[in-house]
Amino acid sequence: MDLPSSVALSTLPGISRTRAASVFKALRDAGRFDVTLEEIVAACSPRAPAETVVAEARREAEILLERAAAARIEVVRWDAEFYPPLLRTIVDPPPILWVRGGVEILTRPAVAIVGSRAASPYALEVAGRLAAELADRNVLVVSGLARGVDGAAHRGCLAGGGSTVAVLGSGPDVVYPREHGPLAATICKSGALVSELGPGAPPLPEHFPLRNRLISGISLAVVVVEASEKSGSLITARCALDQGRDVMAVPGSVLGGRNRGAHALLKDGAKVVETADDILDDLGWRPSGGEQISSNSLSEDDLLQKLTPGETYDLDEMSATVGLSGSTLLSRLTEWELLQRVVKTAGGRYRLADSYGKGTRGGRIAGEGEDDQQISR
Amino acid sequence: MDLPSSVALSTLPGISRTRAASVFKALRDAGRFDVTLEEIVAACSPRAPAETVVAEARREAEILLERAAAARIEVVRWDAEFYPPLLRTIVDPPPILWVRGGVEILTRPAVAIVGSRAASPYALEVAGRLAAELADRNVLVVSGLARGVDGAAHRGCLAGGGSTVAVLGSGPDVVYPREHGPLAATICKSGALVSELGPGAPPLPEHFPLRNRLISGISLAVVVVEASEKSGSLITARCALDQGRDVMAVPGSVLGGRNRGAHALLKDGAKVVETADDILDDLGWRPSGGEQISSNSLSEDDLLQKLTPGETYDLDEMSATVGLSGSTLLSRLTEWELLQRVVKTAGGRYRLADSYGKGTRGGRIAGEGEDDQQISR
Repeated sequence: MDLPSSVALSTLPGISRTRAASVFKALRDAGRFDVTLEEIVAACSPRAPAETVVAEARREAEILLERAAAARIEVVRWDAEFYPPLLRTIVDPPPILWVRGGVEILTRPAVAIVGSRAASPYALEVAGRLAAELADRNVLVVSGLARGVDGAAHRGCLAGGGSTVAVLGSGPDVVYPREHGPLAATICKSGALVSELGPGAPPLPEHFPLRNRLISGISLAVVVVEASEKSGSLITARCALDQGRDVMAVPGSVLGGRNRGAHALLKDGAKVVETADDILDDLGWRPSGGEQISSNSLSEDDLLQKLTPGETYDLDEMSATVGLSGSTLLSRLTEWELLQRVVKTAGGRYRLADSYGKGTRGGRIAGEGEDDQQISR
Repeated sequence: MDLPSSVALSTLPGISRTRAASVFKALRDAGRFDVTLEEIVAACSPRAPAETVVAEARREAEILLERAAAARIEVVRWDAEFYPPLLRTIVDPPPILWVRGGVEILTRPAVAIVGSRAASPYALEVAGRLAAELADRNVLVVSGLARGVDGAAHRGCLAGGGSTVAVLGSGPDVVYPREHGPLAATICKSGALVSELGPGAPPLPEHFPLRNRLISGISLAVVVVEASEKSGSLITARCALDQGRDVMAVPGSVLGGRNRGAHALLKDGAKVVETADDILDDLGWRPSGGEQISSNSLSEDDLLQKLTPGETYDLDEMSATVGLSGSTLLSRLTEWELLQRVVKTAGGRYRLADSYGKGTRGGRIAGEGEDDQQISR
């Protein structure tokens, strides 16, 4: 499906974005890479005739692409090199992302920090400190540009010299809240503003719950810093659980109810986070003495290139082949599966993903190379 | 073994209290209720001849009993009616407890609250509030009379109209720290000061780690409120784990290290406590709308009297007989086992304990009735 069709798919009138996204994903998972826009619309039970819906969406897509070009907004299609690899694995990945800033950072290992908008000084301090520590270890910090904890996380990451991604509930060119305009501009310099909503989309309340699934979808883990019982951060945590991501929470005062949501997560088994080391430990990364997490220090390629394409391995065989102990291998395998470097076969064995080695980081999907020239970047 | 011998057993020169206590417990568990003081001493590999050790201990016991009588200190033997029933189940239960205050409260369901001596205002407030909430539900609050969290727990319980037990690392007539004299006096009015150390024993540093096993041993659960990495409260938590008791911790600030010990417990699986309801939930007690936990509201006797003495039941059979659902029954069974109302047989079936129905709460041990007249209270 070409870029204009992918954009049209993300803006079908009368059909929810997530419905269209999940139908498209399900068809691809079933091997239907040649599916047409009309088929997808028909599968979504539209109220209007499919042709009418598609025609309207194509007109809208044309307008959005023109606006994006004028505003230097990048369009990253689901099978593009820099589409966030973990986001590709959720049930309803957006067919396209609109991005301001640097798209190439979107494939880096990422952790989300989210929390209260009306945050306490404690929450702001902890969010900023955790983000700076993650930045120091070369982990991308993802959040939602909201007031309070989100803003503190973005700022802390920038202060720590890192790159941060803000996922918006509006078009990538619409900054909300408005006072975060300067912060958004700074984020773009080394990081990115990301949205599934096209240029000009307003920050409507209904956008934010859907936006939250992208915050978790891009990330390996979601860390909640201060959330009351009705906090939107709990939606992000719920999305993370649904997506198989780690959910973690920072403890805080039990008085006043500010942390009741975060503590409820802890009661349900979320990991306790005091420092960035807790996050990295839980993800199976324990860089010794200041070592940074990067594609180099992970030396993923060194390990994966020891595997023969097409061959399957059980845990012991893979352990012997790549030279990692069983427990270390297990944590790496989880990551490799999420990043689609390695595939688990029906028999519980593992093999290199077909896409591995054909693209660079970002794991291009095999058989979908023909459109690459049309994909932005 | 009569009372003077039991006191002598608890004060054998050159033999650790816990060693003697565990040897005595092991012999009883093996059915040796007729064991003599000399046998126990011999089993503890004394440096001096057993007769010499025993003779010296008997002289000391006589002095201690005289002092106790003069100071109105009660002596509660391990098989006495009011010896704390859960304490009887640990590997090294003191052969006797010295008690100031009301011994009859010692059989009530108890929860320990322990924590930092140099406590923050936050910890003091939370400890006091939890203790008051527990008091309101008729749960005994156990702590160690130390500065900080311990003191706040005792005070909170008293303010909530409850009874509290202070387990001392000195004789029951030696209050440490000294500024807790008035608090200790108030505790005695409705609760008790308890020690395994005889009258006049000074508060030596080595007494406190051993004292901690009694705090947890008396209690169904230990709640840690603020503990740094080297806090003595962690010893109490470790004792609780060894004794199969629930360990719980109150979350707090991750800044400054004050809660690092408490959070480490949470990372290791301790339950998160925000309110007393969290404690009661974890213990399987969920009183609806202000209902109090007491022998009446538990209606333990109503349930247990449906069981036929001598008969064994699997879970389904017992569930049908007493009329409780499987999950409710399971949480009650745990409590009944701890309280020695019910015994698990080798085949994983359950039966009424032989002692059940022969005494009152406190589960007198069958076959040990002959000494009852000599036991204080």
